[in-house]
Amino acid sequence: MKIALAQINQTVGDFKKNTEKICLSINRAKCKGADLVAFPELAVTGYPPKDFLDIPAFVDENLKALEEIAHSTSGIAAIVGFVDKNKRPYGKLVHNAAAFIQDQKIVSVHHKSLLPTYDVFDECRYFEPAHTISPVKFKNYTLGISICEDIWNDEEFWTRPLYEIDPIENLISNRANVIINISSSPFTVGKHEEIRLRMLTHDAVKYKVPFIYVNQVGGNDDLVFDGNSAVINAQGKLIAQAAIFEEDLMVVDIENPSAHVQPKRYSPIETIYMALIAGLRDYVTKCGFKKVVIGLSGGVDSAVTAALAVESLGSDNVIGVLMPSQFSSQGSIDDAVKLAINLRIVYKITPIKDVFETYQNTLKTEFKGLPFDITEENLQARIRGNILMALSNKYGYLVLTTGNKSELAVGYCTLYGDMSGGFALISDVPKTMVYELANFINREKEVIPKNSIDKPPSAELKPNQLDQDSLPPYDILDGILKAYVEDARGVDEIVRMGFDEKTAREIIRKVNRNEYKRRQAAPGIKVTSKAFGSGRRMPIAHNFMR
Amino acid sequence: MKIALAQINQTVGDFKKNTEKICLSINRAKCKGADLVAFPELAVTGYPPKDFLDIPAFVDENLKALEEIAHSTSGIAAIVGFVDKNKRPYGKLVHNAAAFIQDQKIVSVHHKSLLPTYDVFDECRYFEPAHTISPVKFKNYTLGISICEDIWNDEEFWTRPLYEIDPIENLISNRANVIINISSSPFTVGKHEEIRLRMLTHDAVKYKVPFIYVNQVGGNDDLVFDGNSAVINAQGKLIAQAAIFEEDLMVVDIENPSAHVQPKRYSPIETIYMALIAGLRDYVTKCGFKKVVIGLSGGVDSAVTAALAVESLGSDNVIGVLMPSQFSSQGSIDDAVKLAINLRIVYKITPIKDVFETYQNTLKTEFKGLPFDITEENLQARIRGNILMALSNKYGYLVLTTGNKSELAVGYCTLYGDMSGGFALISDVPKTMVYELANFINREKEVIPKNSIDKPPSAELKPNQLDQDSLPPYDILDGILKAYVEDARGVDEIVRMGFDEKTAREIIRKVNRNEYKRRQAAPGIKVTSKAFGSGRRMPIAHNFMR
Repeated sequence: MKIALAQINQTVGDFKKNTEKICLSINRAKCKGADLVAFPELAVTGYPPKDFLDIPAFVDENLKALEEIAHSTSGIAAIVGFVDKNKRPYGKLVHNAAAFIQDQKIVSVHHKSLLPTYDVFDECRYFEPAHTISPVKFKNYTLGISICEDIWNDEEFWTRPLYEIDPIENLISNRANVIINISSSPFTVGKHEEIRLRMLTHDAVKYKVPFIYVNQVGGNDDLVFDGNSAVINAQGKLIAQAAIFEEDLMVVDIENPSAHVQPKRYSPIETIYMALIAGLRDYVTKCGFKKVVIGLSGGVDSAVTAALAVESLGSDNVIGVLMPSQFSSQGSIDDAVKLAINLRIVYKITPIKDVFETYQNTLKTEFKGLPFDITEENLQARIRGNILMALSNKYGYLVLTTGNKSELAVGYCTLYGDMSGGFALISDVPKTMVYELANFINREKEVIPKNSIDKPPSAELKPNQLDQDSLPPYDILDGILKAYVEDARGVDEIVRMGFDEKTAREIIRKVNRNEYKRRQAAPGIKVTSKAFGSGRRMPIAHNFMR
Repeated sequence: MKIALAQINQTVGDFKKNTEKICLSINRAKCKGADLVAFPELAVTGYPPKDFLDIPAFVDENLKALEEIAHSTSGIAAIVGFVDKNKRPYGKLVHNAAAFIQDQKIVSVHHKSLLPTYDVFDECRYFEPAHTISPVKFKNYTLGISICEDIWNDEEFWTRPLYEIDPIENLISNRANVIINISSSPFTVGKHEEIRLRMLTHDAVKYKVPFIYVNQVGGNDDLVFDGNSAVINAQGKLIAQAAIFEEDLMVVDIENPSAHVQPKRYSPIETIYMALIAGLRDYVTKCGFKKVVIGLSGGVDSAVTAALAVESLGSDNVIGVLMPSQFSSQGSIDDAVKLAINLRIVYKITPIKDVFETYQNTLKTEFKGLPFDITEENLQARIRGNILMALSNKYGYLVLTTGNKSELAVGYCTLYGDMSGGFALISDVPKTMVYELANFINREKEVIPKNSIDKPPSAELKPNQLDQDSLPPYDILDGILKAYVEDARGVDEIVRMGFDEKTAREIIRKVNRNEYKRRQAAPGIKVTSKAFGSGRRMPIAHNFMR
């Protein structure tokens, strides 16, 4: 049996294009001699459709699209992810489903059993779980069709299964002799190599059946899907792996695999780099933008953001803006200019001194006798935000914010200031990882000026300011943040890890107090196991270590 | 049996104060001769604790608090909502639970069976559902202890039950002869009168047992809980109802009820008014603020916001700021001043003309030859936002934004401009309802200047601008928005309701396209059945009627 794995990049709710792409892939798979082509989870609607699922008109369009897709399967079988209606008189209105289509006929429909409802996932919000699980006969095989999370509950692989049932065990006991899993499994660093492939291998060996894993690719808001579709044979060997962060149509003969393949190896930082580039490109395109504008401070965060944007969108589509104030060092201005030249992007210089002085003048009666403080610092950041937004409004550019995860965690950023913008590209990248990215970007030649990487970080919002005046060194900060935000450890545990108690407490307090800023932050791309945003939902009004 | 219903206002994660309040209520209930005192759902942690539930240290503190509470129950029984650990080797780590405590001993623990996971609720994200349901003997009664959603699935009352099981039926068939339901059920307009009371009455009559309903009160972020705790006897008569939007400790003898009572009647707009006042007060207090600052434009939205703030926090805690530009009419300035005088609040006048001109000058080379457009309009709004934030930073005021739901729906508002602020008080109030609120506020005397209510609404960001140049009349806009946003109707249905197709399509497109603005909006108070924010989760990048 020749199976095609159609690793495609869909747009939520774009039924016309999504359907075209599916039909095109069916045709291409047929031309390549495939007996069966499998598409990712919810390929018809795009994933995640979120609360569009509550709109009946959306679900109806998806069903019409599935009909159209079925019509184009003459001479081939297809497994297509779509939204099915729940026909029972109770429960959620829809199922997350896979249609098994053969020769223009929908032969069977398979519902997802395990509905991830944690981190960025909300599937219990929408979907009724499967009430029955059954495999389907095709050629000499009995196909066990499963959807994403359905393969993520093996009681041997996981120390603590999240669900009571294991749909794969069920399929196997119903004589499935090949497991096909259609997924929309988002990227986080290390997930594919350290979890997915290990799990697929474990399960293939355990059940002695091949596993066909088809994953979505591309970005949708804060999530980027890495693709990495794979085929594991019954001996647990990887026999094929599709592209990473790119569309692919891979045809595999599961009886006659050409050879075992090694999984392509990328360093963690390289996968993050690719994720950010792919995610940005799709966000820009799917939102209908073409160009982005970035404030360049001469610091490493804006430099990395700009370099990633150039890699993602091309030099012609990135505009840099330098907005020096009286507190900007000449070195920073030089570094920003040098970066723009290295990246071959257009850059503009718009000093903010006049506007800053006029604000101060406007507020002078009100603020009479009061010292320069965070107010005036924030004001400078807000003037810069306004200028970028003015360029966005006038020319239709998307503003990229340049803040990193460490700053966002502790609130070392200005609402409506440096947080102004439509997409916060590196907002899930901790500062220490920003440096790793900078070095990766410079791996062949100096793109990011060495000085931007080497100098002590500063917001340059008052004389002689350094980040480290307000924050612990970034390696310590990032260590504590990982423990608290990603791993949900308490103070006691963090202290046992070797961090200072007072510092740990202060950082946790800052994280907890600054939820109000993050609530108004632009979305960014999730690359770690726990990003701020839809995957971490915290109250603003509370009194837990505040 | 005398039951005390302790309708309390807790703060998420404030274990010290929450515990004190519970212990105090236990004592007061004892003094009033109660045999049993019942507290709302998750009274120990405050509701909703959200992702704090993922932090083991948070759960541990809650268990310690429960121990302390148990110690203070000598001579009385108590039902206390808390977070219990799941002792099974699979599933979510915690249960949403009620402890039945008697004479310092935790006699039994009851887990919530039905976990709401829709709209603002995310309970499947955190909680493992109950695996067993059993009533508990107390005095001559068999108490059926249930938690919030557990009573919301009667197959006779609802046309389509959301869950397969009905825990109340189960409790009754296990001989419960009184149902106690501890809730954290947030306010939406009409919910108490039209749903809760009708449902409780229906169920009491159906099962011929009394229903004791204890609800939380107070605001937590975007949710405000109305209290309205109630006792319905076995004949389905309301025999006691606690305060609305205030703490209360109501003791009811269920064998010997004094008399039937009529539910207190409030008009819908009055309940919304009370909800906004209560919700704002708690947000300000629980976030540690004292004073709020509001930009006063002379329009009805800022006038209603300011009037509500004064009612909520007192005149001394509200500061008004007028920020006229060259496009502000003298009438608007007069109206804003008149409002401030009527409300007896401090007001400041900070013209934005100089700053606006300096920005234009700074950008003049860049924008050379290009006409005045939305860029310059937004710039004015952003200058005002910056000034309010500068006052916030300098003096520690919370900025209240003044945008209404209709504007937010269609994006008729400026990111980092009029959207700047920590709390968007009326962001779930459609414009037509803003007028109703204005008239309600003026019910006894003119608080909001008549002219602010009567004049055609205008953003005054360019000469002779009116809202109705860009939008359909507000009664039509609000009709379409209710159909699409609250009731999830498609274009066809909306047209069948009598709206023009082109208008409906255009409005839906605007709603769908402006998700990016709402993603960065401050939280506001949910008063309708579907508010933007945590209850409506939409993708930004999509192509469904965009």
